[in-house]
Amino acid sequence: MKIKLVQNKLSKALNSVSKITGGARASLPILSNVLIRVDEKRVSLVTTNLDMAIINYLPSTGSEKGTITVPAKLIADFVSNLPSGSDVELLGEDTKLTIKSGEYTSIINGTVADDFPELPDIDTEKVVTIKIAADMFKEAISQVMVAASNDTTRPALTGVYFNTFEDALYFASTDGYRLAECKVVEKISESVSVIIPSASLRAVVGLMGDACEEVELLIDESQIRFRFGDIEITSKLIDGSFPDYRQLIPKESEVNLELKKDELTRVTKLAALFAREVGGSIVCLANKTDQDFSIASVANELGENSSKINTKVDIDGKITLNSRFLLDALGTIYGDKIEFKFSNNLNPIILRAVNNDNYIHIIMPLKG
Amino acid sequence: MKIKLVQNKLSKALNSVSKITGGARASLPILSNVLIRVDEKRVSLVTTNLDMAIINYLPSTGSEKGTITVPAKLIADFVSNLPSGSDVELLGEDTKLTIKSGEYTSIINGTVADDFPELPDIDTEKVVTIKIAADMFKEAISQVMVAASNDTTRPALTGVYFNTFEDALYFASTDGYRLAECKVVEKISESVSVIIPSASLRAVVGLMGDACEEVELLIDESQIRFRFGDIEITSKLIDGSFPDYRQLIPKESEVNLELKKDELTRVTKLAALFAREVGGSIVCLANKTDQDFSIASVANELGENSSKINTKVDIDGKITLNSRFLLDALGTIYGDKIEFKFSNNLNPIILRAVNNDNYIHIIMPLKG
Repeated sequence: MKIKLVQNKLSKALNSVSKITGGARASLPILSNVLIRVDEKRVSLVTTNLDMAIINYLPSTGSEKGTITVPAKLIADFVSNLPSGSDVELLGEDTKLTIKSGEYTSIINGTVADDFPELPDIDTEKVVTIKIAADMFKEAISQVMVAASNDTTRPALTGVYFNTFEDALYFASTDGYRLAECKVVEKISESVSVIIPSASLRAVVGLMGDACEEVELLIDESQIRFRFGDIEITSKLIDGSFPDYRQLIPKESEVNLELKKDELTRVTKLAALFAREVGGSIVCLANKTDQDFSIASVANELGENSSKINTKVDIDGKITLNSRFLLDALGTIYGDKIEFKFSNNLNPIILRAVNNDNYIHIIMPLKG
Repeated sequence: MKIKLVQNKLSKALNSVSKITGGARASLPILSNVLIRVDEKRVSLVTTNLDMAIINYLPSTGSEKGTITVPAKLIADFVSNLPSGSDVELLGEDTKLTIKSGEYTSIINGTVADDFPELPDIDTEKVVTIKIAADMFKEAISQVMVAASNDTTRPALTGVYFNTFEDALYFASTDGYRLAECKVVEKISESVSVIIPSASLRAVVGLMGDACEEVELLIDESQIRFRFGDIEITSKLIDGSFPDYRQLIPKESEVNLELKKDELTRVTKLAALFAREVGGSIVCLANKTDQDFSIASVANELGENSSKINTKVDIDGKITLNSRFLLDALGTIYGDKIEFKFSNNLNPIILRAVNNDNYIHIIMPLKG
């Protein structure tokens, strides 16, 4: 096996694929390796953690066929320290990979490619294909993923639910206490209902960078593949059913406020500082007489705190929230003004940007 | 007690003094607090961790006398989240501090100032005073501190030794395996020989920022005080005697090389990647026949590595080093070209910038 490539390209590809190596499953040593494969068409650099696999393709000009696997982080670190723009040659023989670049030579001990786990294949007969603008995809994932659960005893809640409703494609996440939903594509012809692991989506978003313009999704019954630039990421789907979340979103609310996002963020942060000892509980009050909205922390050992925002109030209202959930939500809403809607009961509050129906965030209140 | 200040100034001062609170001694709760003291002349914000104390002075215009202590991080976080440039009023009554700024109000529960530890006082009769340019001071500290030890069983080696020799002021650190020394002031009239804890110096350098031009040192028998801008930091000295390190620096070396710093750094990093499994051991070889210098890792499970640098070599030489120590040293030497001197025995190697005698770094070799 022989590969000739310029340092920058090879280094970027090795850094990309080595991102998922050496994790929790490092007890299986081969998962720390990158599989380097050269065939007639191209060079493939492959890593997998069994839940997902990353392939980075490179041109095979001047290469000779063959395969080998070597420790991914070691070769990535080595190549990234070679002089920028220099020519790098990789020579594979049995289990040894020789790397040469000018006066720099090293031999990395690897293993034969036969030991590398079989790579997931997508069932091209049953596949659904969707193309999404890269910026839109990254924004939507970052907006909804904050509401996903870390509780592995309920796997379906740990991912992002890609689903179609009335011909539109939505991404949604919920941990049972809050829910975030984003409309991503206005109209698609096929029907989708799959849950993608958050870890896979983090890897996808992390590797997309700013360069690529579009991501292509290929979905079959048990897997999803993301294609962008020279990279292909294939992930398992989460087996399980996502809650029928649309019924949880209140159709109407008693108290409907419009608040400046930066002011609301500031008063929430101030109250949160004092709410640490009471599990983050803060009390939100809409006052019709004074025409203002206030957030207060419950008095405790640290002290107490209250801040006001002047705003139009049609009806008095009171709701108790977890300050961290409110701050998380405010971090995902783009726009200067926020709709803040709630009722004087245990219905969830609704947050979204004024004049933007594509993204909605709801939070269950705490008992006051 | 009453204080009126603009948010930015108050926030900066609170953030500065709260840097040393809440550390290892947090078992004594009052050490998490900031002492706020207003007298005729000025406002003082004070924190201490018993090893050192920080005072940040502020103008007392429009203030009323008094004292209180409150949790430092809480008030620092609160004030830093208030609108930039707004007026902030602090009102202290008994153990409660009320903070007001526009629509934002909070009450922080504190304690009376009597509980706060007594602050260290410098013996002004026996004090030595030295003024050093801020840039020079920061650079010298960062250059030598890398060689200080973390081993608390030998306290004298955990600090930086400020000492005078032939009328010049030097800073030096050693952990027994390497030594760094910097000449800081060419000529001073007084004699100094004190060891400053690394943690105190880190705090001083961290708080100096880029704004101040000069730092003033006041040293008595058991303490050192650093003054710069509105800040005064007083630290205990380390009790103990520093090794007579000057005799450890070889006067002559057999092999005297001049190497480009970026090339030497690169080949060391490459070799270090392969040296991880052998405790960082790398072998440096000067070859007279080929007129080159090479660094190689010892072959092991990961593989092997060797890189060459062309340079003038008058005599063959070989030395085994810890790659981390060499990389640390290269990170502290400013200049494009490096003197790399060693002998074919167990004498330390000498590293310094070509044409700069102010800073020297020596490393004990490993047995090859």
